Formats: sequence, C-alpha cells, structure tokens
Amino acid sequence: MNSFAALSQAFEQRFNIRHFPGQPATLYDPAQYILGLGGKRVRPVCVLMGNELFSEINPDAYHVGTAVELFHNFTLIHDDIMDKAPLRRGMPTVHARYGESTALLAGDVMFAQAYEYLARIKPDHISKILHLFNKTTREVCEGQQLDMDFEKLDSVSFEDYVNMITLKTSVLLAASLQLGAILGGAGESNQRHLYEFGKNLGIAFQVQDDYLDAFGDPEKFGKQVGGDIIANKKTFLMIHALETATPTQLVSLKELMTLNPPDKVEKVLQLFIDCKVDEWARELKEKYLQTALAHLEDIAVLSVRKKPLQELAAYLISRDK
Amino acid sequence: MNSFAALSQAFEQRFNIRHFPGQPATLYDPAQYILGLGGKRVRPVCVLMGNELFSEINPDAYHVGTAVELFHNFTLIHDDIMDKAPLRRGMPTVHARYGESTALLAGDVMFAQAYEYLARIKPDHISKILHLFNKTTREVCEGQQLDMDFEKLDSVSFEDYVNMITLKTSVLLAASLQLGAILGGAGESNQRHLYEFGKNLGIAFQVQDDYLDAFGDPEKFGKQVGGDIIANKKTFLMIHALETATPTQLVSLKELMTLNPPDKVEKVLQLFIDCKVDEWARELKEKYLQTALAHLEDIAVLSVRKKPLQELAAYLISRDK
Repeated sequence: MNSFAALSQAFEQRFNIRHFPGQPATLYDPAQYILGLGGKRVRPVCVLMGNELFSEINPDAYHVGTAVELFHNFTLIHDDIMDKAPLRRGMPTVHARYGESTALLAGDVMFAQAYEYLARIKPDHISKILHLFNKTTREVCEGQQLDMDFEKLDSVSFEDYVNMITLKTSVLLAASLQLGAILGGAGESNQRHLYEFGKNLGIAFQVQDDYLDAFGDPEKFGKQVGGDIIANKKTFLMIHALETATPTQLVSLKELMTLNPPDKVEKVLQLFIDCKVDEWARELKEKYLQTALAHLEDIAVLSVRKKPLQELAAYLISRDK
Repeated sequence: MNSFAALSQAFEQRFNIRHFPGQPATLYDPAQYILGLGGKRVRPVCVLMGNELFSEINPDAYHVGTAVELFHNFTLIHDDIMDKAPLRRGMPTVHARYGESTALLAGDVMFAQAYEYLARIKPDHISKILHLFNKTTREVCEGQQLDMDFEKLDSVSFEDYVNMITLKTSVLLAASLQLGAILGGAGESNQRHLYEFGKNLGIAFQVQDDYLDAFGDPEKFGKQVGGDIIANKKTFLMIHALETATPTQLVSLKELMTLNPPDKVEKVLQLFIDCKVDEWARELKEKYLQTALAHLEDIAVLSVRKKPLQELAAYLISRDK
C-alpha cells in the first residue's frame, strides 16, 4: 500500500504526457493547456486508493484515473465559460485565452478522450465502470445546473443546498473511490461504504471551504477571505444564517446584501458570529467527517489497509480549523 | 431486409421516449426539447442498415443508433451556440430558448447519455464500438474547429475543405454504418468498404448541399437560395471559383464579396457559371457518388442485400440536380 504522496507522484508521472493528437493544434493545444495548469490530482489518486484498499493496483486503474481527471478538467473548462471566470490557478482560463467556442469544443473533445481511456480497460469490469462513470457525469451536470438555478432564487433550503453541492462536487470523489474498488474486486457492500465515505468526506470538505472563505486565515487560505460574502453567494454559512437569524438580524443581513457597504464583510461576519454560524459550521463539518469515517470503519478489510484513506481524510480536512 | 422508410419508422418508435430523468427539469427538459424537433434519423438508420447488410438486426443496434442520434443532437446544440443560430428546424435553438449556459450543460449531459446507451450493449463488441465511437466524436470536434479556423482565413484549398467537411459531417455517417456492421459480425475488409461508402456518400451530399444553395430551385430547397453567397461562406463552389477564376474575374468576385451590392447573388452566380463552377460541382458530386457505390460493390455479400443502401444513396443524392 502506498501513501497519498506516493500515489500522487506515480499518477502524475504517467499523466504528464500529451493526451491528444498534434493536429488541429487550434483544438488540442487548448485542451492540453488546462492539464498543464497542475492540480492535486485528488480524484485519480482516489481511484488508485480505492483499488489498493482491496488488492494490488490493477494497471487499468491508471486508465480509469486518467478518464476521471480528464472528465474533471472538462467540467472546469465548461464551468469557467458559464461563470465567465477569467483565471484558474492564477492563469487565464481556456476561454479567456482561446475564445469561448474553442473552449467549448476543447471541453467536448476532452470528455470524448476520457471515454477513450475507459475503452482501454479489460472487458471484465467495463460495463460496471461505464455505468458508474455515466451516472456520475450526469449528476455533476445536474449539480452545476442546480447551482445556476439557485443563483436566481431568494432562498435555498439547507437540504437543497446539500443535495446540489453533493452532486456538483462530492459524487465524483465518491465515484472515483468506487471505480477503484470495482477494479480491486470489492463486493457490493464494501463498494457502497467506500462511496459513502467519499461522498461525506466531499461534503465535509465543502463545509470547510465555505467556512474558510469567511473565517480562514488570509495568509493560509490562498484566496480573498470574504469573497463569498461580497458576492452574496449562497454558502452553508449564509443559508444557515438566513434560516436562524432573528427578524431584526434578518433585516440587517438582507440590507447588507442589497446595499453592499464598504464594511459589509466585517458586519456580515459579526452577524454570522451572533447567529453562531461559525460554531455550527465547525460542528457540521465534524458530523460529515465522522459519518465518512464510520463508513470507512464498516468496510470489511484489514484496518491496516485503511490507513491511506484516513490520511486522505486528514489531508483534505483539517481538524483544528 | 428492410427499406429506409421501414427502418426509420422502427427506430423512431423506439426513440420517441424521454431519454432523461424528470429532475432537474431545468436541465433535462432542454435536452429532451431538441429531440422533439424531429429530423430524419438518418444516422441511426445507417446503424441498422449497416447491421442488416450482414445479418438479422442485433437488438444492440437500437442502443448504438440511439447513442449516435444523441451524439448528433449534442453537436447540434453546441454548434448552434458557437454559430449563435436563433433557429433550428424552424424552432428556437436550445440556447435561444433556455440560455447559453443551460444549452451548454444540456449538450454535455446528452453526450454522457449517449455513452449510457453504449454501455448497455453486450460485452463482446463493446471495445471496438467504443473505440470507433470515440474516434468519430473526436473527429467531429476537429471538423467543427477547422470550420471555425477557416472562417478567419482569406483562402482555403480544395483539399483542406474536403478534409474539414469530411470530419464535420461525413465521418459520423460512415461510422454509423460501420458500427452496425460490427454488430452484424462483418469482417475488417467489409467494414472498411462500408465506411468508405458512407464517407464518400457524405461528401457527395455536402457537394450537393453547396450546389443547391446556389443553383437550387427555391421552392424545393426549403431555405434561402444564395444564403452562402450572401454570407461569403467558403463552399465547394466558392473555393473552386477562387481557384479557377481569371485575374479579372477574381477582382470582380472579391469586390462583390467586400462591397455586398444588392445584386451580389445574381452577379456571383454569373461568375460561377462563367468559371463553369456549376458543371464542375455536378461532376464532383457524381465522382464522389461513384466512388461510394464502387465501395458498396466491393463488399462481399449477396447483391440483393445491398439494395437498401443503394436506396439510401438515391434518397440522399438526387441524380437530376
């Protein structure tokens, strides 16, 4: 069994090639460009870890990991078009650099290429892997659509937000682990627990991300603290604040969101603290993390094999934040 | 063996269902919408015909045909976004009706759903079918990119135009036939000839389409005659005219393209006739059609089995135009 760092390096070594033909360069260079912007390759590492939880790494796990990473980058290209985002990882987004039409097509061809890697795996697992991969890609599209739908709504319930964020970000993490488990020969029950581990871990990560955007240390967080508040983004924190604020607090909060005064971030943070949103978010993160770990516990393999996944959870979720 | 009409009806009956979940309707209704706009379902019928050339219809041919038709509609949604097209088959395009972001996502999810149908076929042919489908989807993206690239160029060679139009429109027809042939148990050589039949037929169809846009009977053609000329579109005819015009004709042609006078269509058509572009195009169409039919001839099955494909060629290409 290998650590996260070792698997990440092993994957990166194989992944760091050109995944597309040379011509037409006007199509394939933009596709290759986003892959060169780096990233932690968390999802393909999850495929490898899901596999290694049950058996030696199946060489097909690298094909499936590559498919998952290409799919993930395809969603980044298209999401950036929809969000009109100028930057990704500090560099121009694909559409900012090459134009929207080319970015759209480069995304499409990356999605097709993901399936080409899936087509390379041995036939014994292909049907199950395709079904899970397809279900997940549909769900990620659903999550993105719901996210856009929610932007137009005045209020969104906690349940609807959890559902959206699960589809948009957690199911791919969960499916990556399960895809690896399928290649490792895991039984249905073990696959299901591993999927739930990934799903709950993903939600815990998202709660943490929303929390850090409001309460993180600006030096450590790496992006502007309060960005979500400035943009009136619906986050775990904002949704809970809107649900639990007193009538007076609610008036203040809505006023701040409408008028956007210079001290908006500071004042909204104070309201969050008054509503104990910070404490609630820390507990919520912990709840999802514990649920994830309980599912990991329930997987019927030797405890020692679970170490890398516990490491992964610790890597993604910092307990002291 | 069945006629085009019979196979088209058999496919339409199975295809005329909802292909997506009910929720979120904001994502799946737009995807279903374009499927309801109709169309001749030529490509899935090609799958069925390619199959029936070699054996009884394999039930998997309906899954593959559905995948091909969903893929085709996915490209229509995304192409319409890129072309900023307001209408398709006389109805609002998906992005015109539901917005660009939703259209983009509805296309993505339709592409994913195409693969879900492929995942349903029996494992014996899945690997070959996936590889051919993936290659084709990449090529169609390449064709669309080259088409956009060509718009920015002053001149495009005949060879480059044929390559682009082959990728953009013919390879999917060719691949549909070959996918059916794979399901029908055809050997490699027969598959190759059938693919070439479809490819050349597709090019002949495109030459005819370009020809009819200039010289078609407005009442029969169903769209504005001269539309390509008004838009300065690079077509088979325009490319040949630019390559064969005398220096004086070339000056006139370029002047008409720059100044767009009210009698532009009339004058460009006269120049086409002076350069014998009309005659050349009719011969070119015939050349590709004959090449297609020669490949059909070379397929080693009883001649009687080839009847429906000869019918298909006659249906797509009118000899008297």
